[in-house]
Amino acid sequence: MTETNWQQLQTDVVALLKEARRQVLAKMHQTLTVDEKTSRKDLVTNVDKGNEQFLIGGIRQLDPQAQILGEEGFGDQLTSMAGRVWIVDPIDGTMNFVKQRDNFAMMIGIYQDGVGQLGFIYDVMNDVVYAGGPVVGGVWANDQPLTAPANLALADGLIGMSAPLVIHDVAHTQAIVHASAGMRIYGSAGIEMISIMRGKTLGYISHLKPWDFAAGQVLLNTLGIRTSTIDGQPLNMLSSNLVLVATEQAQRDILRIEEDDVSL
Amino acid sequence: MTETNWQQLQTDVVALLKEARRQVLAKMHQTLTVDEKTSRKDLVTNVDKGNEQFLIGGIRQLDPQAQILGEEGFGDQLTSMAGRVWIVDPIDGTMNFVKQRDNFAMMIGIYQDGVGQLGFIYDVMNDVVYAGGPVVGGVWANDQPLTAPANLALADGLIGMSAPLVIHDVAHTQAIVHASAGMRIYGSAGIEMISIMRGKTLGYISHLKPWDFAAGQVLLNTLGIRTSTIDGQPLNMLSSNLVLVATEQAQRDILRIEEDDVSL
Repeated sequence: MTETNWQQLQTDVVALLKEARRQVLAKMHQTLTVDEKTSRKDLVTNVDKGNEQFLIGGIRQLDPQAQILGEEGFGDQLTSMAGRVWIVDPIDGTMNFVKQRDNFAMMIGIYQDGVGQLGFIYDVMNDVVYAGGPVVGGVWANDQPLTAPANLALADGLIGMSAPLVIHDVAHTQAIVHASAGMRIYGSAGIEMISIMRGKTLGYISHLKPWDFAAGQVLLNTLGIRTSTIDGQPLNMLSSNLVLVATEQAQRDILRIEEDDVSL
Repeated sequence: MTETNWQQLQTDVVALLKEARRQVLAKMHQTLTVDEKTSRKDLVTNVDKGNEQFLIGGIRQLDPQAQILGEEGFGDQLTSMAGRVWIVDPIDGTMNFVKQRDNFAMMIGIYQDGVGQLGFIYDVMNDVVYAGGPVVGGVWANDQPLTAPANLALADGLIGMSAPLVIHDVAHTQAIVHASAGMRIYGSAGIEMISIMRGKTLGYISHLKPWDFAAGQVLLNTLGIRTSTIDGQPLNMLSSNLVLVATEQAQRDILRIEEDDVSL
């Protein structure tokens, strides 16, 4: 690619995702092949793998020079964020996919020299693609432009969480929940990020890999939502992070809870 | 009423709920009057109160002799479950209603001498009424009959929870979550019960008042799902209970976890 036509690229990626959805829905009600990765709660299916291969094939056609990081390992071995990097999660929320056939997402983030350009989160079962980024000046839910969520303080909204963090009270998550209006657990980073974009929760805290947050970071930052580590540092795009997503005010409230603990 | 035509009564209650929905949607995007009941996380709004008054008015027309228990206190003072008793929750998941304008329910349960006859849970924003009971021989999601969810063991499915229970590890909820495939928190008993009816979660544990579980108990039992206290006893319809809703197998698995603790 010479000069990128971002608007066209966004259109092309949405078309790729729509075709991926058709294939996933066709396979979804057949018997799944489910394997455990690191534990019995960390699953991968034949659909995750097949969909990653399909998406990476499509991306290579759109952007032959791209470096691609894929959750299931069908992309490139990435050692830096230099150049154009695509980060792909073919099925985010695989446990929901397996147990619910609902509440899962496909996600793609496009970065240039480490800076987010475009993000895509596809709520597959509701058939809504959230797409956008700074290079196209906004975020759309299918054809509807999204407005920035209200800049709520922690006390005034609900917060998404991952279950293990709050059960083990990692990084004062129980104090954070207590200070919020309540905790919700949806079981998919993509679905949690959609909930924040729509103003239904004000944040989300979870241990995440790059493919879990790459797309959401682009979309959320475009809507004025902050993404950082739990202690306020930029996310490392090449490793796992304890991720804090929040409105500006709630981020400040949460970082204060973290700082109040001298043992951190 | 002499001989009750249950099919007709079900149709009439669904019509009443549909009209209630029209009124709630009209008021929902106006400024809400929000009051705290027992704490800042236990809310009531003008819409909860107005909707309870509307529903109780409609019920009195359908069944003039009925005893009615309503969450917001516009019904009767109930001291027994003798005779025909209607139990009404005008807005279940009030925090979701206030913060999300989504993921809340209207619920009505009809009991005769303490035995469930008909239940209604209305997923308001998705416009789906779950209605049925033993007297009509099934449960419907709008016009679609529901089939009984698979009788999953605890290890094979996701379980719904209320956040305070799991944070404080009440009744071994953390061990239960650990033994399951994962925890979800949706913030409304009605939405949790719908999730179980649709086979997306296999159970739910929460401290609940009669209006939180009366409708769901009728619907879920009709589909072969068990409802009991956390130690396997029948629910007391006139007080709060630590409620366990689960498939038959998961109930057995959970009761075994409870029994293994000698201190219970």
